Amino acid sequence: MRDVAVIGIGMNKWGELWDKSLRNLIAESALLALDDAGIDKVDAMYIGCMSSGLFTDQEHLGSIGPDYAGLCPAPGIRVESACASGGLAFRSAFIHIASGMADVVMAVGVEKMTDVDGAGATFALATAADQEYEVYNGITFPGLYAMMATHHMNKYGTTRDQLAQVAVKNHFNGKKNPLAQYRMELTLDTVKNAVMVADPLTILDCSPITDGSAAVILCSMDKAKELCKKRVVKVIGSGHATDTIQLAQRDDLSYLKSTELAAKQAFDMAGKKISDIDFVEVHDCFTIAEIMVIEALDIAKKGKGGPATLDGMTAIDGKIPVNSSGGLKSKGHPVGATGVAQIVELTKQLRGEADKGRQVKKADIGLAQNMGGSGASSIVHILEGM
Amino acid sequence: MRDVAVIGIGMNKWGELWDKSLRNLIAESALLALDDAGIDKVDAMYIGCMSSGLFTDQEHLGSIGPDYAGLCPAPGIRVESACASGGLAFRSAFIHIASGMADVVMAVGVEKMTDVDGAGATFALATAADQEYEVYNGITFPGLYAMMATHHMNKYGTTRDQLAQVAVKNHFNGKKNPLAQYRMELTLDTVKNAVMVADPLTILDCSPITDGSAAVILCSMDKAKELCKKRVVKVIGSGHATDTIQLAQRDDLSYLKSTELAAKQAFDMAGKKISDIDFVEVHDCFTIAEIMVIEALDIAKKGKGGPATLDGMTAIDGKIPVNSSGGLKSKGHPVGATGVAQIVELTKQLRGEADKGRQVKKADIGLAQNMGGSGASSIVHILEGM
Repeated sequence: MRDVAVIGIGMNKWGELWDKSLRNLIAESALLALDDAGIDKVDAMYIGCMSSGLFTDQEHLGSIGPDYAGLCPAPGIRVESACASGGLAFRSAFIHIASGMADVVMAVGVEKMTDVDGAGATFALATAADQEYEVYNGITFPGLYAMMATHHMNKYGTTRDQLAQVAVKNHFNGKKNPLAQYRMELTLDTVKNAVMVADPLTILDCSPITDGSAAVILCSMDKAKELCKKRVVKVIGSGHATDTIQLAQRDDLSYLKSTELAAKQAFDMAGKKISDIDFVEVHDCFTIAEIMVIEALDIAKKGKGGPATLDGMTAIDGKIPVNSSGGLKSKGHPVGATGVAQIVELTKQLRGEADKGRQVKKADIGLAQNMGGSGASSIVHILEGM
Repeated sequence: MRDVAVIGIGMNKWGELWDKSLRNLIAESALLALDDAGIDKVDAMYIGCMSSGLFTDQEHLGSIGPDYAGLCPAPGIRVESACASGGLAFRSAFIHIASGMADVVMAVGVEKMTDVDGAGATFALATAADQEYEVYNGITFPGLYAMMATHHMNKYGTTRDQLAQVAVKNHFNGKKNPLAQYRMELTLDTVKNAVMVADPLTILDCSPITDGSAAVILCSMDKAKELCKKRVVKVIGSGHATDTIQLAQRDDLSYLKSTELAAKQAFDMAGKKISDIDFVEVHDCFTIAEIMVIEALDIAKKGKGGPATLDGMTAIDGKIPVNSSGGLKSKGHPVGATGVAQIVELTKQLRGEADKGRQVKKADIGLAQNMGGSGASSIVHILEGM
């Protein structure tokens, strides 16, 4: 396998972007990433998108992506693994270059979610769960994560304040990110007293509905050294694993086995362990998710993710900053774009280009964890600044 | 890049399979392919599917695929490029192994199209065209291909009989394929006098709506020699290119540039030319499509695809048999499955395992061409029996 590096990043401002269509979002980030890399073409383009069919009546993004980014006739490959589609696009681009099939490949993540109403978005998102056994019986994602939260609280004594602190911390970081959707600070009380969605999760425990995209350009290491004017960011680890799509079929409702397995693959490839990692971006689709993810990554021991969060271990100035970007909670969660945006954040931090007040102190090795559904698929990457 | 071979194939009977859901279709072909290869696990699973969201309300096939095929926690990657999703799954699995990331990878293609009515299926399929500029104005795929046919007829004098002969030939082959959806022979008059869909295309110029799946297991060449009890089938060429998604933006409405470019990549990789190829499977979604594809592959010169077809050049006993499987026309066209089924057919022919009456005489090198939309994406593979 050839070594691979990130040489360009691009991301637009996320939010309710009613004046932009899916193709505009793809093209915007793609062009920003090309500018950042100082190049004007790529050998192939991966597009991570969960459900452009249900959200915008448009499939065939493998064609529309290169076409509207001005990259035609480069091959376009749309990949999907629900909310992990962005991480999957990045991993697929990495594999494509590692194979020797191409030198320069773009990974774009995108989702245009506000062309349908709230019920339409909830329906589309629920297609990431098991339609025949879960959704058919009436459950949607807030309900699934509420069950995971309740189980975690009962099993380990995780408290309502600990959950809420995830939102407080991530909004504190996100306020300093000009590309984030919701740039306001929260308090524990604001989170806990917000409208209840699925007990114990209020609306402020949930990541929002967002339009947005992000793009990354990957390159073989040899060529990166020649092309890249900034700090070269090497992809040193990649992992991907699945679990049962149904929550009910798992051994433990409150443990993310797919994340543990994907992380193990990435750590083994990188020859690193969690104590080598300076900062991480994780998939905080709900506050409980971040707590479960940091346990699966062994940042905190099983059941200790809540106390670790409330104690400030994962704050921007803590032992291991988690979600310096604001996370899905504050930055927004255009589902297919999230995994690519995590790589954009890692690259910014490793280059020392993060906005004032959210640049982590030591940024040499970062990790990104992206997942689909209730953790039925997980993708982990480790990047190192050279 | 490492050499890669096909060591297992599986395909179920295609048709209107109302007693089977999407997950059953995936699992059926996957298990058949594992049996054929004599193995019980893979390192990763690619799933080519165009629009499980619009057809069945189910996304996240990267989780549901490995889960229901008993392959969890192997990573699952759903890829989409409209009707070329199957070819893309195969190509992605090939790249995955070529990279050295894994040794044994499955590519499954699937589409469950009959859970929606005819209007629903037409709507879902139209998401492969440009929603904002084509579909919004009322056109669907029969209309797009009818324009391509009319242009071809006006420019080159292609006749109605020449178009109809594609259907006649492919049904002649498909009648002998027990897995095909429509196993009846047709005459030129039956095709021409059938219900008009979009002038000049009648219902018998169009491929049908189909439920079905197909699976292929790929393996590094070193391991294939050890595992494979049958003739080892090597992937010697792979190509993928895009064109504008809108038909109106192309230089020539009746020429498939993406197919020409994808074929060139595959031929260059293989070190072969079209005269080295013994037989081909092509994407005959409409009769005119096959004529345009054989011209883009240089089987016939530009404008000569019609006469070549009527003269029997592409018949099962002709100079270069095209669609010995029955093609999309007779075998059926579960859109995401088609590209994988083409590889199943190539492998059967190269192993000498095709059904009586449709085994081609000389089968050492075969080519498969799969495309999305009105040719906005094309994927070409060349396989050789070792």
